Amino acid sequence: MRKVKTGIVMMNLGGPATLEDVEPFLLQLFADREIINLPFQSWLGPFIARRRAPKVRELYKAIGGGSPILRHTNAQGQGLVERLDRLSPKTAPHGFYVAFRYVKPTSDDALRAMAAAGVERAVAFSQYPQFSCCTTGSSLNEMWRALERTGLRGSFQWSLIDRWAVHDGFITAMTNTVRVGLERFPRESRDRVLLLFSAHSLPLHIIERGDAYPQEVGASVQRVIEALGAPNPYLLAYQSEVGPVRWLGPSTERVIRKLGEKGHKNVLVVPIAFTSDHIETLSELDREYGEVAHQVGITNFHRVPALNDRPDFLDALADIAREHLASARACSTQYPMRCPGCLNAACRQLPQPGANAPGPSPATAPAAAANG
Amino acid sequence: MRKVKTGIVMMNLGGPATLEDVEPFLLQLFADREIINLPFQSWLGPFIARRRAPKVRELYKAIGGGSPILRHTNAQGQGLVERLDRLSPKTAPHGFYVAFRYVKPTSDDALRAMAAAGVERAVAFSQYPQFSCCTTGSSLNEMWRALERTGLRGSFQWSLIDRWAVHDGFITAMTNTVRVGLERFPRESRDRVLLLFSAHSLPLHIIERGDAYPQEVGASVQRVIEALGAPNPYLLAYQSEVGPVRWLGPSTERVIRKLGEKGHKNVLVVPIAFTSDHIETLSELDREYGEVAHQVGITNFHRVPALNDRPDFLDALADIAREHLASARACSTQYPMRCPGCLNAACRQLPQPGANAPGPSPATAPAAAANG
Repeated sequence: MRKVKTGIVMMNLGGPATLEDVEPFLLQLFADREIINLPFQSWLGPFIARRRAPKVRELYKAIGGGSPILRHTNAQGQGLVERLDRLSPKTAPHGFYVAFRYVKPTSDDALRAMAAAGVERAVAFSQYPQFSCCTTGSSLNEMWRALERTGLRGSFQWSLIDRWAVHDGFITAMTNTVRVGLERFPRESRDRVLLLFSAHSLPLHIIERGDAYPQEVGASVQRVIEALGAPNPYLLAYQSEVGPVRWLGPSTERVIRKLGEKGHKNVLVVPIAFTSDHIETLSELDREYGEVAHQVGITNFHRVPALNDRPDFLDALADIAREHLASARACSTQYPMRCPGCLNAACRQLPQPGANAPGPSPATAPAAAANG
Repeated sequence: MRKVKTGIVMMNLGGPATLEDVEPFLLQLFADREIINLPFQSWLGPFIARRRAPKVRELYKAIGGGSPILRHTNAQGQGLVERLDRLSPKTAPHGFYVAFRYVKPTSDDALRAMAAAGVERAVAFSQYPQFSCCTTGSSLNEMWRALERTGLRGSFQWSLIDRWAVHDGFITAMTNTVRVGLERFPRESRDRVLLLFSAHSLPLHIIERGDAYPQEVGASVQRVIEALGAPNPYLLAYQSEVGPVRWLGPSTERVIRKLGEKGHKNVLVVPIAFTSDHIETLSELDREYGEVAHQVGITNFHRVPALNDRPDFLDALADIAREHLASARACSTQYPMRCPGCLNAACRQLPQPGANAPGPSPATAPAAAANG
């Protein structure tokens, strides 16, 4: 087995690879107190998860029997480390390790694999471009718990790539997918196609805690529009709201209905906060919202291709990691600052920061962040 | 009287110049159905306005007896047209005309003054960098109604500067105010000062209509942070919510309380969506929230100076107008697109676009926008 010097941990919430994984996936999701707060959660969480499972299984069945996200993440990791070995020989050899939040391979799996490969330096690389406590935050906190569980706390020197909402490479790759998507429209109407940027929504109570997500999503949208340099009108909406609480709007589905009512005929959906195809693109955007669009008379309704393993996106991932490895930053300056309304005192840790010198706002524990 | 070729209309909601103007200002505000929808509005609006007037008068009394916004807008207009006469001789001479939404000088006043000066070409220049239907949208719709009221519909060729959230000059000027603000903190803690960007909030039902505002505010914040190039942590919050409906959060006031509870000592507030001092900066941010900050132990709490008549901001305004005059655009490509949830069929008009050739998305009436 090849000794690996630098381990890149590809962090994502993940998705069920098979229909049998759907219920365990939902059980984990509804147990995550960083995302969902229910009364009697240890009882009500499993109850809701089990009740939703059959319906969700049907959705996964319709997109081929499971989430393709592990396949895409493996392809992204492989493309990333191949490029990094060339771009950053000082930190080579690089290996990649997938850490999903709710399904295998878990953070524990990634840590054990890194230990077995002799990794010295670990880079936790969130695969969500825009930071939210519900995605990147939850994955990182789980990783720090896994360090304790596995007894591997002292084994690696850590640094984080916790957000990259406006990184040039990401914006270029995303803009290229918009160009590909626009080619599906007749040339004469291409400049008038409405670009509907869609990001996963968040419950308002999380927005009100001070989550960075909507600001960073807004910045990504602006940058793609500028890079595109085309006259298309655009909107930002939020998808996938579920349950009884109020979510950040406008709702993508409702926006599609209203656009149809107003006579729009050409709409291109741009999933701005996802990097791989999964249930929210393949099922919700393409099937559910595609059906809504058809009903309301949007004759040309398309979605841009997901970044998946597109070479320009692999180049972007490698560039983000190379810049990070060459920098003196242990994490972004935003990471150490807990949300103003955060109640989780264990949030925003960075155990054993190293390899990189500490960054300019190097608080490694919540207490330090509070001195800002 | 000098003949003016190009009239720049400085559009803003405005504020009461004297204590006597407070009640009429509130009456106009609560009558604006583009912002406020009340049952029995023609009765309930005046009722609420009259009930709030005494309290609001006290606030204006405390900041010197009225809003300074007309003074600042006049200084901005003067600085703008002086620069434009040099920068854009082809469209000179330029004149500026203030059009406030709820107080004098109104859109009617601006139109009559432009007609008297022989203006041929009118540029409606929103003084709000980020577009919202509640600010720029309401002001423009009022201007089109005023054109009918005054019988001056055929008198000018119109174009619009309806948003400039990420214009380089604006970002530079705003970033310079952040640098000035940071100088009020001890040098050794300057890099750790938390930058609290604050924008006026909007009711969620307006966000859910598809208002562009939060996306554009998020983009402005990102650009200022990048231009600053300093390691300060930052947050975006929304201020000035009032009444029983739910507003976009996180609330600036609540964020300040929570930051204090978390032990933050150094906070610099950056009003990212205002360009002049007025009640929301002088009273709400400086006095009310300053008192809150004091209560919760934020020992160093400051606000950056407003852009007002800072020369770099006057340069920015002139640059925005010069670019617009030199371009072939009648308005932004976003303007002709009504919000998906909009119920006002008269929204997003552009009467008699001209001087500039029509832009690439030149819909001049709602019907045309719907063909996108």
